[in-house]
Amino acid sequence: MCSAERIDGKLISQKIHEETLEESKKLKEKHNLQPGLVVVLIGEDPASQVYVNMKEKKSKELGFYSEKIVLNKEATMDEVLTLIHKLNNDPRVHGILVQSPPPPQIDEEKVIESIDPKKDVDCFHAENVGKMLIGKTDGFYPCTPYGVMKLLEYSDINPSGKHAVIIGRSNIVGKPMMSLLVQKAKGANATVTVCHSRTPNIPELARQADIVVAAIGKPEFVTADMVKEGAVVIDVGINRVEDATRKRGYRLVGDVAFDEVSKKASKITPVPGGVGPMTIAMLMQNAVKACKMQNGITD
Amino acid sequence: MCSAERIDGKLISQKIHEETLEESKKLKEKHNLQPGLVVVLIGEDPASQVYVNMKEKKSKELGFYSEKIVLNKEATMDEVLTLIHKLNNDPRVHGILVQSPPPPQIDEEKVIESIDPKKDVDCFHAENVGKMLIGKTDGFYPCTPYGVMKLLEYSDINPSGKHAVIIGRSNIVGKPMMSLLVQKAKGANATVTVCHSRTPNIPELARQADIVVAAIGKPEFVTADMVKEGAVVIDVGINRVEDATRKRGYRLVGDVAFDEVSKKASKITPVPGGVGPMTIAMLMQNAVKACKMQNGITD
Repeated sequence: MCSAERIDGKLISQKIHEETLEESKKLKEKHNLQPGLVVVLIGEDPASQVYVNMKEKKSKELGFYSEKIVLNKEATMDEVLTLIHKLNNDPRVHGILVQSPPPPQIDEEKVIESIDPKKDVDCFHAENVGKMLIGKTDGFYPCTPYGVMKLLEYSDINPSGKHAVIIGRSNIVGKPMMSLLVQKAKGANATVTVCHSRTPNIPELARQADIVVAAIGKPEFVTADMVKEGAVVIDVGINRVEDATRKRGYRLVGDVAFDEVSKKASKITPVPGGVGPMTIAMLMQNAVKACKMQNGITD
Repeated sequence: MCSAERIDGKLISQKIHEETLEESKKLKEKHNLQPGLVVVLIGEDPASQVYVNMKEKKSKELGFYSEKIVLNKEATMDEVLTLIHKLNNDPRVHGILVQSPPPPQIDEEKVIESIDPKKDVDCFHAENVGKMLIGKTDGFYPCTPYGVMKLLEYSDINPSGKHAVIIGRSNIVGKPMMSLLVQKAKGANATVTVCHSRTPNIPELARQADIVVAAIGKPEFVTADMVKEGAVVIDVGINRVEDATRKRGYRLVGDVAFDEVSKKASKITPVPGGVGPMTIAMLMQNAVKACKMQNGITD
């Protein structure tokens, strides 16, 4: 029934984790260094706890110095900024991550600005965002769009000269995706179109794409009539839709109507198991890069 | 012969200079402040001298504190960085500009990184580039693409929901142009396509554009067959082509074949007299903004 090749994000992320583990071991053996990643959670949001625990667990598996710091949900800005300041100056810590979203009394933008850009492994700080757009390689790339670039690479899809149509212009996916794909660089060099809520003719534009990146946050938004025969379709969406047949009452679907689109696409990412697992894999890669850069290691 | 309305960059830039003068006067009267702009020239490149002198002259006309600092063409990195450090700490100076290109012994990237982002009125520093892409308004926008946004605004062209096709992906025009046009913001909200040297089908893509921005640095690259009837055409190119009939032996042409394209476009910028004069106008606006931000003035 499904003619498109599935891009297996679970498998690819696993390969990347293996690479990260190798690099982590090498840092230990050659340089007596241990990449350090600290995840800060403010409050008790259950979904955030799940994410934070996943990141902590994976860091430990990869041999990192790993710390999870949980602040009370009533934590003040002062407390958060004092903590960030301490972590910025802690040489064991190469990457700092503040789990989003923080409670309402916390100004997330100010917290991000307070993180030393060299330790900003999420690439939320303006300096790293700017480096990415300019094409400098001494910053970080945001984990999800970076993961998409790696999915393409590991699936032998070279975007050079291809037309990539990105649906969505968020700061965490759409805009960095456009920045990465348009660069004059190996693995990039795509012609890029960005569509969004104000675009009147998304289907017409999407049909021109050799590569569609769906990141608009609407369940099954991309239908078969919006996709060219043989296109590559990358689904960044994760949406909950009610489903009484499931025990938990919902199921996860992407921004792409997988069943129908997979009949036309040449390669497609499933949800879950496509882009999802890549985010944490690239976070760990960023932590290793941070460790190397902060220690002047270039091998 | 010419059916398109000409967008008069000279006139529009004049209006913006008048606004800047008003703001400059107001800063003096209400706050006893004078915007300060320093232009640094390293070496004696004749074209650079012309630009630097223009900027100095305009600053003075607008009532700014203005300084032109000329360093020897053999100046060392240390000398340049020491000068920037001094200017970063000089409260009279709100904007610092290092004329490009510097001589070969000078690492331009490092010089840009050394400028306090708050004084980076060219918007070359990664932090300001990142703020622009994220959509923050407390940085600066690069003067030429910012000038294009103002040309659109003053010509009553609202990019919202329109398809803008940008030809060229340079760090000073193409990429910031895409960043500004795609924002979820008043005067922006365009669907954006970026084409470049690796794009195989630029004519086909350009023909879909409601707004074409040509910034590829090739004389008369955009021809009539590449433009949709009624499109708006913005020409950022300035190219010298040999012309024996001219006294100086060349004439300036844009990236657009003006005569033929102006028969199909609804509005078009000429070269010279289109985008060109806007760059310096936006630089002066950035200097006023820098002065206000550094002094906490919001009116």
